Amino acid sequence: TVDGDRLWDSLMQMAAIGPGIAGGNNRQTLTDADAEGRTLFQRWSEEAGMTMGLDRMGSMFLRHEGAEPDLDPVYIGSHLDTQPTGGKYDGVLGVLAGLEVVRTIRDLEVKTRRPIVVTNWTNEEGARFAPAMLASGVFAGVLTEDYANSRQDAEGKSFGNELDRIGWRGTEAPGDRRIHAMFELHIEQGPILEAANIPIGIVTHGQGLWWLQVTVTGKDAHTGSTPMAMRVDAGRGMAQMIEAVHRIAMDHQPDAVGAVGQANVYPNSRNVIPGRVVFCVDFRSPDLDKLTSMRSRFEAEAVDIATGLGLGIEIEPVGHFDPVTFDAGLADSLRAAADRLGHAHQDIVSGAGHDACWIAKVAPTVMIMCPCKGGLSHNEAEEITPDWARAGTEVLLHAVLDAAEI
Amino acid sequence: TVDGDRLWDSLMQMAAIGPGIAGGNNRQTLTDADAEGRTLFQRWSEEAGMTMGLDRMGSMFLRHEGAEPDLDPVYIGSHLDTQPTGGKYDGVLGVLAGLEVVRTIRDLEVKTRRPIVVTNWTNEEGARFAPAMLASGVFAGVLTEDYANSRQDAEGKSFGNELDRIGWRGTEAPGDRRIHAMFELHIEQGPILEAANIPIGIVTHGQGLWWLQVTVTGKDAHTGSTPMAMRVDAGRGMAQMIEAVHRIAMDHQPDAVGAVGQANVYPNSRNVIPGRVVFCVDFRSPDLDKLTSMRSRFEAEAVDIATGLGLGIEIEPVGHFDPVTFDAGLADSLRAAADRLGHAHQDIVSGAGHDACWIAKVAPTVMIMCPCKGGLSHNEAEEITPDWARAGTEVLLHAVLDAAEI
Ligand SMILES: NC(=O)NCCC(=O)O
Ligand SMILES: NC(=O)NCCC(=O)O
Repeated sequence: TVDGDRLWDSLMQMAAIGPGIAGGNNRQTLTDADAEGRTLFQRWSEEAGMTMGLDRMGSMFLRHEGAEPDLDPVYIGSHLDTQPTGGKYDGVLGVLAGLEVVRTIRDLEVKTRRPIVVTNWTNEEGARFAPAMLASGVFAGVLTEDYANSRQDAEGKSFGNELDRIGWRGTEAPGDRRIHAMFELHIEQGPILEAANIPIGIVTHGQGLWWLQVTVTGKDAHTGSTPMAMRVDAGRGMAQMIEAVHRIAMDHQPDAVGAVGQANVYPNSRNVIPGRVVFCVDFRSPDLDKLTSMRSRFEAEAVDIATGLGLGIEIEPVGHFDPVTFDAGLADSLRAAADRLGHAHQDIVSGAGHDACWIAKVAPTVMIMCPCKGGLSHNEAEEITPDWARAGTEVLLHAVLDAAEI
Repeated sequence: TVDGDRLWDSLMQMAAIGPGIAGGNNRQTLTDADAEGRTLFQRWSEEAGMTMGLDRMGSMFLRHEGAEPDLDPVYIGSHLDTQPTGGKYDGVLGVLAGLEVVRTIRDLEVKTRRPIVVTNWTNEEGARFAPAMLASGVFAGVLTEDYANSRQDAEGKSFGNELDRIGWRGTEAPGDRRIHAMFELHIEQGPILEAANIPIGIVTHGQGLWWLQVTVTGKDAHTGSTPMAMRVDAGRGMAQMIEAVHRIAMDHQPDAVGAVGQANVYPNSRNVIPGRVVFCVDFRSPDLDKLTSMRSRFEAEAVDIATGLGLGIEIEPVGHFDPVTFDAGLADSLRAAADRLGHAHQDIVSGAGHDACWIAKVAPTVMIMCPCKGGLSHNEAEEITPDWARAGTEVLLHAVLDAAEI
């Protein structure tokens, strides 16, 4: 079994880097804090006898050697970057649980036939640079390196330049690795497991997603002296479209969600009718038909709203993945491990996107979820218990040992 | 008559300071560009023989001496600060037309009995620091110096610190001046005069205003993994309230306007349901009852919307003035001047707030308006013709000469 205290202690040490303003973290991708977190993870891994590979997207691959180094390794991974007002566990748990698995294997002096590689994928969150799961998407061949390097943050800084700036660009070609199996442990980020009092979720599917960036164009004008009839108010367009997103998601219940998380108004002055707004719609469903239908209904309604208000509109997809089915054999091995350890488990669908969703395209992949308090995530108050973290890591350890062949 | 070319040339030289991104200006109050514009206006004024007074709010008073220096002066004024994406004439015309009036009086070698003071009021726009017309409000005794100094911009910088930083804080107590009469020439910022093909508006009234800053509080949560029923989405609250503002303004037609110009979503990440939004409502009417009614109806509807969505709400007034009636005698003198000069004129109500609206509380005050193209203002594409600028300045000159007693 794993050392729950050591795991928790590592989680808390990592959380000290890039602290948030309310007990969580702001360690956004390719910031100085991200670089500091990477260095700490590298040091810990090297102290555990691992060696580092680094690809051109900055994804880190810490390798624990196997008895037969030529066999395809077993991968464990997630991400160390956070939301601007993020929690301490989202992503971090999956990376540090991987480290804890290797630390435990060393302590037990067992030798697996296959190498084990613990991965930190760059820019999973997509908060600073859309889309989310950028480096794992490039690894899986779904996105190109050029596209990734060109993505810009809100200040116009590019992913490529920022990766160079923090000094974490490697030389390895993304995707140039053979993967026997990939495991990702992640907090649920939803309320289901906690409500059912079940510590282990076996993730059989993941929701698909569309991110649609909408630019609505009106005309900057004075809020006081412009008659109502002459206004071309881009803010009203956004207001009606936010409500349309909600209505469309509700019309696709169950198993569909929709919201607008990011919105910027220009010129954003109290006495100027907004001439432009840019906002991002987030639609998700595990059902491809629903996902497609929400997108097309939104596009039609948004154009109608814009036309009705005399506004211009452009809709650009800035993130997309289809619903995912994870590997059934690996899911079975997780169930067997949980049964062996006496941890109650249930099957679950991932509501969020994860690096595992992209890696599933190129290798047998599966996810384990542990509960989080109140289903809260992407919030500094995100919380889990040490017991949940330990239980998930134990199941991970057992399944990894199976896959890596002791 | 005035020198229209000299006036236009000065307008264009001022517009070169703090250029915008689309042909207009970004010379927001208390920025380095504002300091540069002030220095240029001071130099021009001193070259025209004027001497500067400066109050503790940074308002500039350039004095052209009268034959009887002890008589209360005639004031001409407006502002040199602009919106973030503002035009070249909003405010600037009123200051530089004042300068042109003095330059003309010197050229003609006429001597008025009363001194003439050309004023640049600090922070008229209210774009960087709410409320608008801040320094003239302090001058009129409606707002306190402490309040003004404590106002913060979006980055948390205070008016007081920024005024000190740019080195434009004077020693004179705000309001410590006797004013015989005050004139403000301003572009209309609306479509009425141009549509009627009338170059001169005699401003008899000004609209009143409420700025209501609304903070809506929900709960940051993941857009993918949070079930629809568990969401507390502050963005939806804002969306419904933006539409309520519009509906309420339409229900008070005619002579009422309402819009939301500024809105910020937190944490503003694509995959986080907004836990907080802050936006500013702008209601205006020349009719005090309508103005009051719009505010109270909005407050009631906003609370209903918040309650319906499970959101918290706080509403803070951050700007207010009652409808204004300008001095009837000064308006008559403007009509007489326009008639004498052969410029067609009509009475008009100011849709925007102006420094003259506050000064009207403490001295006989009036405004002249000239048309602007397409009614467009608070837009970099704001435009006027040299003929409109000249006609307005001529009427100003004649009325000022009457008031200053030649
Ligand atoms: N797990 C997670 O929050 N990933 C970020 C991408 C997403 O929004 O689903
Ligand atoms: N004239 C002008 O745009 N003043 C700014 C204050 C207002 O919004 O009315």
